[in-house]
Amino acid sequence: MKDFFKVTDLDKVFEYTSLFPTVKTEQVLIEKTPGRILAEDITADIDLPGFSRSTMDGYALCALSTFGASEENPAYINVVGSIAMGESPSFAVEQGETARISTGGMLPKGADSVIMIEHTEILDEKTIEVYKGAAPGHNVIEKGEDFTKGTVVLNAGQKIRPQETGLLAAFGKEKVQVFKKPVIGIISTGDEVVPLAETPQPGQIRDINTYSLSGQVIEAGGIPSTFGIIKDDYKDLLGKCREALLASDMLLISGGSSVGTRDFTIEVLSALPDSEIIVHGISISPGKPTILARSGKKQVWGLPGHVVSAMIVFTAVVKPFIEKISGSSPERKSRFALSAQLSRNVSSAQGRTDYIRVRLTEKDGILWAEPILGKSGLINTMIKADGLMEIGKNVEGLEKGTAVKVFPL
Amino acid sequence: MKDFFKVTDLDKVFEYTSLFPTVKTEQVLIEKTPGRILAEDITADIDLPGFSRSTMDGYALCALSTFGASEENPAYINVVGSIAMGESPSFAVEQGETARISTGGMLPKGADSVIMIEHTEILDEKTIEVYKGAAPGHNVIEKGEDFTKGTVVLNAGQKIRPQETGLLAAFGKEKVQVFKKPVIGIISTGDEVVPLAETPQPGQIRDINTYSLSGQVIEAGGIPSTFGIIKDDYKDLLGKCREALLASDMLLISGGSSVGTRDFTIEVLSALPDSEIIVHGISISPGKPTILARSGKKQVWGLPGHVVSAMIVFTAVVKPFIEKISGSSPERKSRFALSAQLSRNVSSAQGRTDYIRVRLTEKDGILWAEPILGKSGLINTMIKADGLMEIGKNVEGLEKGTAVKVFPL
Repeated sequence: MKDFFKVTDLDKVFEYTSLFPTVKTEQVLIEKTPGRILAEDITADIDLPGFSRSTMDGYALCALSTFGASEENPAYINVVGSIAMGESPSFAVEQGETARISTGGMLPKGADSVIMIEHTEILDEKTIEVYKGAAPGHNVIEKGEDFTKGTVVLNAGQKIRPQETGLLAAFGKEKVQVFKKPVIGIISTGDEVVPLAETPQPGQIRDINTYSLSGQVIEAGGIPSTFGIIKDDYKDLLGKCREALLASDMLLISGGSSVGTRDFTIEVLSALPDSEIIVHGISISPGKPTILARSGKKQVWGLPGHVVSAMIVFTAVVKPFIEKISGSSPERKSRFALSAQLSRNVSSAQGRTDYIRVRLTEKDGILWAEPILGKSGLINTMIKADGLMEIGKNVEGLEKGTAVKVFPL
Repeated sequence: MKDFFKVTDLDKVFEYTSLFPTVKTEQVLIEKTPGRILAEDITADIDLPGFSRSTMDGYALCALSTFGASEENPAYINVVGSIAMGESPSFAVEQGETARISTGGMLPKGADSVIMIEHTEILDEKTIEVYKGAAPGHNVIEKGEDFTKGTVVLNAGQKIRPQETGLLAAFGKEKVQVFKKPVIGIISTGDEVVPLAETPQPGQIRDINTYSLSGQVIEAGGIPSTFGIIKDDYKDLLGKCREALLASDMLLISGGSSVGTRDFTIEVLSALPDSEIIVHGISISPGKPTILARSGKKQVWGLPGHVVSAMIVFTAVVKPFIEKISGSSPERKSRFALSAQLSRNVSSAQGRTDYIRVRLTEKDGILWAEPILGKSGLINTMIKADGLMEIGKNVEGLEKGTAVKVFPL
């Protein structure tokens, strides 16, 4: 049995991420930041909070004033005022004095703690009994306790989640610098492929990859830019690739998995300006015939034509490359895999990394990963799948009950 | 210690989802479907694939022709043609005959299987040797094997992932009916709250909740619609709530957590048209003072003012309500929690559900959930957090090493 090309190990493939530069940055309004990658460090230009705040409804005072107070032996404290929300108290509290305060209110001078209203009793207009001693800082968020002025609070490369957007608001950042979303060009190839709007004749199939890959690009934080279907014609494909590369940061070509088509794609990629074939075949299944090429500083991927193979290669191989050029800090992906138990034995060939589609089911508190059988050309296996399980290249198969990691699909 | 309001159990709160109707539907182009919720069942109107296809490069033939073939005793087969991609073969193969076929090619009449090219040798222009017997269906995807014409392939209520978008393409669906994204109105309240663009004076804080909640609404599949900051004024807040409700499918009001502010919000909500206070306090921490009201068929939430409490209540309580009105089928959330081990003992009060922010770290293949200490008023605890861990209401605390479920933040 001939080996048609020299496959590259997955680890080695990922080393090539360093070849491709990060996209440019742009300024966006804070409303547009959720999900984006921060491109600048953010430094606290004020203390957060800017003043000591109460975390309870109660009475602000100096902890010393409550020294030894208990149910049996309450402290009698003089109420000298009430603190309005949003205002700086115009008075101070001395020892033996207090002021009424609400949650979020600013502590007056002289106060270092707050007694919950539940631990007090009003004696008269001017006096309360306090039934519990307070320590300094009790029920208070100190000035600068959340973030101190001058510290770096967010780093370039961080993904902006809703809480990071909130933090930008806290520091009054109306606009921030983020990485642009990379534009990912998508081309479908194959004499048998017809557009969505056409009714396929016998021998023909509709173009699926343009749509499934576009969805994956969106999920990965990129902007899909589609260039339609190109028949297996050298000149047409070369022309379309040149055009697409000018308008994209990366190019995905999905095409037939036949040896002829593959050779043909290699020929086209080799003819691109300043080009180099970097990877011709990866030791993974499905997806072995995947090609990675370079044209200038842009990457061009030759993906399998089968929709399932193309999707799995995207998830397992292409996505980390998109994240790299998106400016994202090294991924936390492995931390966010689901732990499950394998529902039955699975065989796997040594020397390659296998990706198995699984359905997840919970039973008695245990999450089971149930491998989905079916040829890789069947899209129904991806519709049924909840996730993808990886079997390492040095593993010959896994037994029922093995703890496995599953990446949600 | 007085209990200021009668809290509702979380389970009971979720029963109220049934009170609120699903949003309307709209037609979108297939390109816009990723991430949307399907609002119609999709039925296969053709067989997928529409013809029997080869999954390999090789020779299409009738399996019977290879009966008994082996390395020592090859079968000699007559090559009668070659099948072009995308075309219906104009000829049939009889027993003892074959045709050259590529991956994805259409099987000619008379063929039921494909022999891989690696298991053949060319003898002359018209003859090959076959070294291996094939069974019917070998290396073939049969007509209709992926999906059979007439079956329901996708259901209303399903979230459209990239593979579902791909499937819509396979059936030529240029447009489909999806649920509209619900518009979620957001109002910040409090005399101490100032807009982002202002420099807060002592006693004042910038509006964070408008931005953090907007980000969460986007993540939950909704469209945030912000209505700014309203001071603690009955008439202003009532007016703004009426205005916001007309333009939204649901309304979120985040406000101070003081008893006074809460009473005030209740008064305003009670004055809305056709209104009812459904929940006044939930047995969760943080987030106990949460309010759920109804105005007509729309829900109005009174969320705590503290950014962390507001975000946690959104994640744990509000989000399932948004998913309900978004038309989403009952959630698969629990299946997609991460399993981790608790890094230290955590105490919890019985009778309430506790949400603990955790940092996730992997060590020796084990995912550890490390509780983040810190007051719920500190946004830095949310910045450090990778996820949220739930401690059930009947649990008094968890010991180090306990297996816990973590929802990514």
